[in-house]
Amino acid sequence: MKPDILIINDDGIQSPGILALAQAMESLGSITIVAPDQEQSAKSHSITLDDPIRVNPAYLKGGIRGWAVKGTPVDCAKIALRSLLKKKPDLLISGINLGSNLGKNLVYSGTISAAYEGATLGIPSAAISLDSITAKEFSAAKQVSISIATYLLKNKLPKGTMLNVNVPYIRKNKIKGFRVTKQGRSSFMDTFEKRVDPRGRSYFWIKGEIRNLDSSVEFDGEAILNGYVSITPIDFDLTNNVFMNKLKQEFIHD
Amino acid sequence: MKPDILIINDDGIQSPGILALAQAMESLGSITIVAPDQEQSAKSHSITLDDPIRVNPAYLKGGIRGWAVKGTPVDCAKIALRSLLKKKPDLLISGINLGSNLGKNLVYSGTISAAYEGATLGIPSAAISLDSITAKEFSAAKQVSISIATYLLKNKLPKGTMLNVNVPYIRKNKIKGFRVTKQGRSSFMDTFEKRVDPRGRSYFWIKGEIRNLDSSVEFDGEAILNGYVSITPIDFDLTNNVFMNKLKQEFIHD
Repeated sequence: MKPDILIINDDGIQSPGILALAQAMESLGSITIVAPDQEQSAKSHSITLDDPIRVNPAYLKGGIRGWAVKGTPVDCAKIALRSLLKKKPDLLISGINLGSNLGKNLVYSGTISAAYEGATLGIPSAAISLDSITAKEFSAAKQVSISIATYLLKNKLPKGTMLNVNVPYIRKNKIKGFRVTKQGRSSFMDTFEKRVDPRGRSYFWIKGEIRNLDSSVEFDGEAILNGYVSITPIDFDLTNNVFMNKLKQEFIHD
Repeated sequence: MKPDILIINDDGIQSPGILALAQAMESLGSITIVAPDQEQSAKSHSITLDDPIRVNPAYLKGGIRGWAVKGTPVDCAKIALRSLLKKKPDLLISGINLGSNLGKNLVYSGTISAAYEGATLGIPSAAISLDSITAKEFSAAKQVSISIATYLLKNKLPKGTMLNVNVPYIRKNKIKGFRVTKQGRSSFMDTFEKRVDPRGRSYFWIKGEIRNLDSSVEFDGEAILNGYVSITPIDFDLTNNVFMNKLKQEFIHD
């Protein structure tokens, strides 16, 4: 029997990245696409509580059918897994994101947060991102998606752990292979640009420039820069255990 | 010299929780309040990229002055730290949130995400939440806020680590003390309620019911239930190192 594959993204249902992922996954199984009706970058694990969530049928290029959700990537994952799908899918892949998701910036990514919803339910889940925000060529990323999906259909991940996969945007034959990496320390250096609107009132745009602070291909960002596909197994087990033990001696217990 | 204390929340600048926190922090230092102009619960690390961010002066009860931001809790933290404040504050406290932030649900919390922005810049930072979404009585939570702030003004945290503090909503003299805890496994059990609007079109509301899966006061949720203030040091170092080492043997390296 063909595996059921749930596809989500944060760039929106009309992004070329989700189309490429859908085309790749159709070769492996029966796909369901549930994606935001608009771009939802940097929405992290945001959930829509104040507004009703709408779900409408939508079509991708070539007539591939999906569901367009007026909501965040996590809304998409939750509504797919709790309401739209009759049974748990065998696989959840989020992407293909236009732009990498690396280092400390992972926490802002809707692509990753959507996949994490699958991981918490024990569904093999991955986020796939391509290191170009203007990417037009997806053949390498599609091939990587098939490799990752094939792995996940055969092997278990620990519950709550997902794969964060980043693909360099270079010619397929220049890609050196896969690297299992650690989350690096690259981060956004934020600045705010102040402008004045036609009514004379000020407003701000946020701007971020990525700083790569790593120097070894053991880390995600450097692996990409060196032509490797980076695979980082991540979870959201947030306790700093080392510091917790120190802190225990400082706060009085009963 | 009095320490500079930055105060943020996710319930919005008119929440009684941020007023209580402001009153408590005024006893310790010089406060700056930068908070969303509307409730921003469950916005996680969401950043506003598509809309301009507005910042307007606003007043809390009693005439305490603050800044109301049309944006998310993380927008508030970033714009305060990168644009509004002349220098790095000595302390960042986020809260007092109406409702606990425990277990796996931490990832959805704007209260925590706002404090994390401070932690990434090496500012001693904490999120403080009260275990009642309808709380009216803040004296215990205020006293806890002062204890935590006093600790953070004297002691360093590792860069990138913040304190997640939860206060049980019980009489002050019933609180048993502080417990340094681990992030527990409590999570939302999500369901979706389908309704039909007056035009005959369907929409959904998300509903979550907390499931507590822990059985020891070593974990945040159980500590609260047993009358302790829970303090969990958390970071967003997401790599699952144990599984990473296993995975390294499975994917081919050069």
